[in-house]
Amino acid sequence: MVEQNTLNEFLTMLSSKAPVPGGGGASALGGALGAALGQMVINLTIGKKKYADVEEEMAGLLQRMEQLKIQLVSLADKDGEVFGPLAAAYGLPTGTQGEKAYKEQVMEERLLAASQVPLNIMETASQVLDILGVLADKGSRMAISDVGVGVSLARAALLGAVMNVYINTKSMKNREIAEELNQRADAMITGGTRKADQIYEGVLEKLR
Amino acid sequence: MVEQNTLNEFLTMLSSKAPVPGGGGASALGGALGAALGQMVINLTIGKKKYADVEEEMAGLLQRMEQLKIQLVSLADKDGEVFGPLAAAYGLPTGTQGEKAYKEQVMEERLLAASQVPLNIMETASQVLDILGVLADKGSRMAISDVGVGVSLARAALLGAVMNVYINTKSMKNREIAEELNQRADAMITGGTRKADQIYEGVLEKLR
Repeated sequence: MVEQNTLNEFLTMLSSKAPVPGGGGASALGGALGAALGQMVINLTIGKKKYADVEEEMAGLLQRMEQLKIQLVSLADKDGEVFGPLAAAYGLPTGTQGEKAYKEQVMEERLLAASQVPLNIMETASQVLDILGVLADKGSRMAISDVGVGVSLARAALLGAVMNVYINTKSMKNREIAEELNQRADAMITGGTRKADQIYEGVLEKLR
Repeated sequence: MVEQNTLNEFLTMLSSKAPVPGGGGASALGGALGAALGQMVINLTIGKKKYADVEEEMAGLLQRMEQLKIQLVSLADKDGEVFGPLAAAYGLPTGTQGEKAYKEQVMEERLLAASQVPLNIMETASQVLDILGVLADKGSRMAISDVGVGVSLARAALLGAVMNVYINTKSMKNREIAEELNQRADAMITGGTRKADQIYEGVLEKLR
């Protein structure tokens, strides 16, 4: 489990040529760092007289962000778990027509599973971005720079995870499903980067 | 020391309202994740017949990337170390003219130190980006998606760390030094985001 490793251990595992952890796990962790920074901002807002009118909203967002952070760490693990079965499927025999058909079916299932994890990372990172957008407006101005950092990291999670969507959908035989997954991913990239850049620019304006 | 904590411990510390670790540390770690992914790509390139002609170059880049990764983890710690003295300086008494002058001098020194750490994070992340650019061209095509993820994370390190430069230079009395530091940061943002986006687009083209 990713979360039980020290940072140094994780970085060493990531650096190695072992396929897991890889880009998907790193993307998810980038998103988790962004979510944690969002929580920090909320924690610096709650209990301050100046922000008393948003206290209840902040308490709700804190819980939500905690869930998203836990989800992202768990998705970093899941990304590793779907890789093994997919790699095994690539190695299935193709000597007979029956073997070929079986391999194709198994590959298709596992490519779908391997696409869904990065899509989930993207969905979760998009939700982190949404909350960071609220924090840019309503959170403590003292911590506005941390919103900017969080947004950059959540954006990286989106743009990182989509790589693993494209890689897996590319090999799918069922182009209808593949295109549907790609379109879901593309929509999150378009909306997410626009939103992230907007929030980031707003933070910069308040900061400088 | 950041690197000795488990990922969960670090995420919990980051989420808390304690100022350290904060956005600077998270930015540095984002950059370290990007560097580690670069190493993974290099490790998947070295030893492959197809890439024998770049093997020597890759071995050099691997060492360089390892140094950059270690530097980024150590900068995550350093970012925390400069915060305490700065916070303490904010609390210095200003009852007399002498106290005021002393506080101003101490503040100025510590704001400079607190600006230099994120500038170093930015410089290191820029170097990670440069190497990832080489990997996008010459690294194993099998691992091209990991280059894309690494680039996204190194870009986030740049755009995250610059927040802490602006925050600290904003409070400096010596506007000449402040502007000089801001210009160094701005140049890295302009060059770095252009480079990152270029590499990322190139990776996407090869991938889709």
